[in-house]
Amino acid sequence: MSVTAPLGFRAAGVAAGIKSDGQRDVAVVINDGPQRAAAAVFTKNRVKAAPVLWSQQVVSGGRVRAAVLNSGGANACTGAPGFQDTHATAEHLAALLDDSAGEIVVCSTGLIGERLPMQQLLAGVDAAVAEAARDGGLNAADAIRTTDTVSKIAFRRGSGYTIGGMAKGAGMLAPSLATMLSVLTTDAVLTSEQCDALLRAATEVTFDRLDTDGCTSTNDTVLLMASGASGTTPDEEEFARLLTEVCQDLCRQLLADAEGATKTIAIEVVGAASTADAVEVGRAIARNALFKCAIYGEDPNWGRVLAAVGTTDAAFEPDQVNVAINGVWVCRGGAVGDDRAKVNLKPRDVTVTVDLSAGSAAATVWTTDLTVEYVHENSAYST
Amino acid sequence: MSVTAPLGFRAAGVAAGIKSDGQRDVAVVINDGPQRAAAAVFTKNRVKAAPVLWSQQVVSGGRVRAAVLNSGGANACTGAPGFQDTHATAEHLAALLDDSAGEIVVCSTGLIGERLPMQQLLAGVDAAVAEAARDGGLNAADAIRTTDTVSKIAFRRGSGYTIGGMAKGAGMLAPSLATMLSVLTTDAVLTSEQCDALLRAATEVTFDRLDTDGCTSTNDTVLLMASGASGTTPDEEEFARLLTEVCQDLCRQLLADAEGATKTIAIEVVGAASTADAVEVGRAIARNALFKCAIYGEDPNWGRVLAAVGTTDAAFEPDQVNVAINGVWVCRGGAVGDDRAKVNLKPRDVTVTVDLSAGSAAATVWTTDLTVEYVHENSAYST
Repeated sequence: MSVTAPLGFRAAGVAAGIKSDGQRDVAVVINDGPQRAAAAVFTKNRVKAAPVLWSQQVVSGGRVRAAVLNSGGANACTGAPGFQDTHATAEHLAALLDDSAGEIVVCSTGLIGERLPMQQLLAGVDAAVAEAARDGGLNAADAIRTTDTVSKIAFRRGSGYTIGGMAKGAGMLAPSLATMLSVLTTDAVLTSEQCDALLRAATEVTFDRLDTDGCTSTNDTVLLMASGASGTTPDEEEFARLLTEVCQDLCRQLLADAEGATKTIAIEVVGAASTADAVEVGRAIARNALFKCAIYGEDPNWGRVLAAVGTTDAAFEPDQVNVAINGVWVCRGGAVGDDRAKVNLKPRDVTVTVDLSAGSAAATVWTTDLTVEYVHENSAYST
Repeated sequence: MSVTAPLGFRAAGVAAGIKSDGQRDVAVVINDGPQRAAAAVFTKNRVKAAPVLWSQQVVSGGRVRAAVLNSGGANACTGAPGFQDTHATAEHLAALLDDSAGEIVVCSTGLIGERLPMQQLLAGVDAAVAEAARDGGLNAADAIRTTDTVSKIAFRRGSGYTIGGMAKGAGMLAPSLATMLSVLTTDAVLTSEQCDALLRAATEVTFDRLDTDGCTSTNDTVLLMASGASGTTPDEEEFARLLTEVCQDLCRQLLADAEGATKTIAIEVVGAASTADAVEVGRAIARNALFKCAIYGEDPNWGRVLAAVGTTDAAFEPDQVNVAINGVWVCRGGAVGDDRAKVNLKPRDVTVTVDLSAGSAAATVWTTDLTVEYVHENSAYST
């Protein structure tokens, strides 16, 4: 169902020859209205790809007619010529839609530091617009894959409206925006200000708390487009909950497909003095290479959890920290707790609970294990 | 020559049965004076092992008679009983030396979260003191190894005095104090204040800039003891230079023996607005899993270097950053530079130079690649 689950959207995904293996590599998501409110959040990396620099300007206007996305090349670190390529892509799609380039979002993903093959890309945009249809959401989700082994799509039905979404991302999933690219759509009636507030609230507790390898991409973009085609003005509370669920659903799929991962790890930090403390502690554990190796080895090594907690500025006393791994409190009061032999780390899903005994705030950060396969995949990716 | 290169020191390393494989696991380094000025720097991890908590108190007095070190157990996250074990160890050595426990430094390394076998440890201290001799430095260096495949020792001759040292550490080499344990000795005449200032200056540009896996140990300790036995009051400038060289020498050995590493990587950051900026950028690259995998794969993937630089707060403009890998400027002005095919990544030593074009400050951070062997070693360490 993907991005075309809501009314008012057409989409397509085509093979334009940017990827050498002949797979789909260009997608469009077109909002036929009647409204075109939109918002987006972007990578916090200061080295931003050309399409991010372009799309930030577009989204600041609060209106988006369509998004064009390509895999097979990130168009990052490509200088002024790379920015011109993005601009030309937006102009090309705008001309096909008889609309303004200033309302066209562009997203790219793939290798950094290489120019895009513009002839193939623009021909691909032609083909995608020709194919764009109400049932094109699956092909669009397929076309934005890089090392993703499966497409990631999700949707939720609200009271009189629908929210749909697609995402891609298998590595470089880090802080401030863990997915590389995601497009969310809805036929609810929303202003661009509502889109912005709702998107920020939803991504803050989902994409922003995914940290597979601590590496922040140059291209991360999460775009929300609202067509208003349902005619329904949603209850904000319900919409916020459902949008968060769609984002969370996509995050789960990203985790399940993360490069080389054999475990999906939820790090629940409870008893924190603040949410910020809880997130900081969760992220420190999520980025600790030794902890991630231990989980790969199915070793409930809580000492490495404590060593990671100790690198943070969060409020806690070392002798009051408790740690559970898959429900067994292997560390109590900063020292040995229950028998670690009771911990079953065979299942893919692992939950590490850290109780800081410093307050009542909590947050969950999601990560994966550090595996031999991750190293293999990322040492051979570009060569 | 190790820690017994300078006059006034005895040392030993014995097998006390703490390690299950019968290797040496207890070392002593004894300062027979006439002076006993000392200083130390410790891990910045807030979860500190019992011997660190103990030794911080000892060193604050500025006088150290001896150090006792064990491998086979870190005595970290062991609560009040673990601290009592450390205290008992210091008392035991003090009694053997007819001295004060308040001037005995204790260091431990090994697994976190397990109590030390005190009967074996105290018997080991007895044996080590009995064996301690002017030629015992090599055995002491051997006894502090954990996953280290070789002992790490170094020394330099100054004008009328000598500086010696040993270190251990093969993983968990991170920020603020990269080595787990190091003991430095000198027969120069120094006050404890001089020891402190000289040690901090030397470690700031050596141990502090080693970052193999971003993981900060709970036990890191670098101790400097001055016996005054040479009778020589050193030229401070010369002593500072030689002490830094000894630390640097030990760091090189730690890098060469880092767990599973196949490359030793120097990240030189130049053109920075400040030294702090240069260190921040160097550390961000040193901790970037994707960059480290790329170097393992002998892939000069400068895009990952830029993506890492972009996560920092350092002063720079993305379109003015230049990157060289082993001398080839593969990125100029934030975009493609010279042909990456010219980069030879076959040798173990790799140099990545990042020119931020933002000032005249510089710093070098050392790291290693992220390898299949690292994951293997660290997923199986305790199981």
